[in-house]
Amino acid sequence: MAYIELGNDIPGIRGLLAYRPETAGPLGEFTEVLLRGDNSLTRGERELIAAYVSRLNECVYCASSHSATAAAQLPGGASQVELTLAGVANAPVSGKLRALLEIAGLVQVSGRLVTAEAVARAREAGATDVEIHDTVLIAAAFCMFNRYVDGLGTAVPGDPAEYARSAQFLVEHGYQTPRR
Amino acid sequence: MAYIELGNDIPGIRGLLAYRPETAGPLGEFTEVLLRGDNSLTRGERELIAAYVSRLNECVYCASSHSATAAAQLPGGASQVELTLAGVANAPVSGKLRALLEIAGLVQVSGRLVTAEAVARAREAGATDVEIHDTVLIAAAFCMFNRYVDGLGTAVPGDPAEYARSAQFLVEHGYQTPRR
Repeated sequence: MAYIELGNDIPGIRGLLAYRPETAGPLGEFTEVLLRGDNSLTRGERELIAAYVSRLNECVYCASSHSATAAAQLPGGASQVELTLAGVANAPVSGKLRALLEIAGLVQVSGRLVTAEAVARAREAGATDVEIHDTVLIAAAFCMFNRYVDGLGTAVPGDPAEYARSAQFLVEHGYQTPRR
Repeated sequence: MAYIELGNDIPGIRGLLAYRPETAGPLGEFTEVLLRGDNSLTRGERELIAAYVSRLNECVYCASSHSATAAAQLPGGASQVELTLAGVANAPVSGKLRALLEIAGLVQVSGRLVTAEAVARAREAGATDVEIHDTVLIAAAFCMFNRYVDGLGTAVPGDPAEYARSAQFLVEHGYQTPRR
């Protein structure tokens, strides 16, 4: 049970979004643009960055949800996600995505840890400035979402099938259609 | 100079927002609702929470900017802000705001540090559920904004007068009117 009276029993961030539509509106639009808008990073790659940061923040709800959503949209599926979250250095992803995940890992601790050298490595591996920008913003955004979800003590579904269903919904409908 | 080529020399988050209008739009709307929308927490109180979290994250640009914006809207001005950021336990604010700042400080480290007890203390000091929700979301949001600003190595103005001018603009026009 959440720390505040939400007036609903929807788990994770969805219960919070239903509780406070004033902030949910722009947050949904932001997430839709960031994770699903036109981009040279695929939707699966962006979800993988979100899942990785959520795992580092030990946010069970977000890590499970975005792992499932990444798995549904990446060619390597769930095993590609699990191997990546187990360790970026040996992740079965492109050199570019690996360098971007390394930046995301720095951002998770503090924005101040990112260096010109880490950015140069990503650029050498083929990342564009927009991809570097979006990676930093995705990592930063999940430092917000993870704290929002855990800081209010929201309910975490225990059944993995629930995350798979949620992922399927997100793949089809995105982040601006409430699922009750 | 920022780590990526922004195509502008605007400091701090404003340079990033000008670079990426796709995400800047919903982020501006989100910040406007969160820090300036109808609320039983005053705009000054919400800016103080933002400044406090930014100081804890050692984000010089955001801490300076939101300290100035809080000072411009709180009855105790700059000295009230500085004394609060120096230590919440003895901050010259209401018991309710002190309890909310304590929750914000937990969120800054990790959402997982917030406890039912910390929330109960805020409620006993008079905080409503919406105020607790918004405090957690403001603290979480500045864990995003701070990482966004520092993770891309944006320029930080050294002149305090620049933050005072920026604060005056924000007080008058809010977060959805770009200032170039």
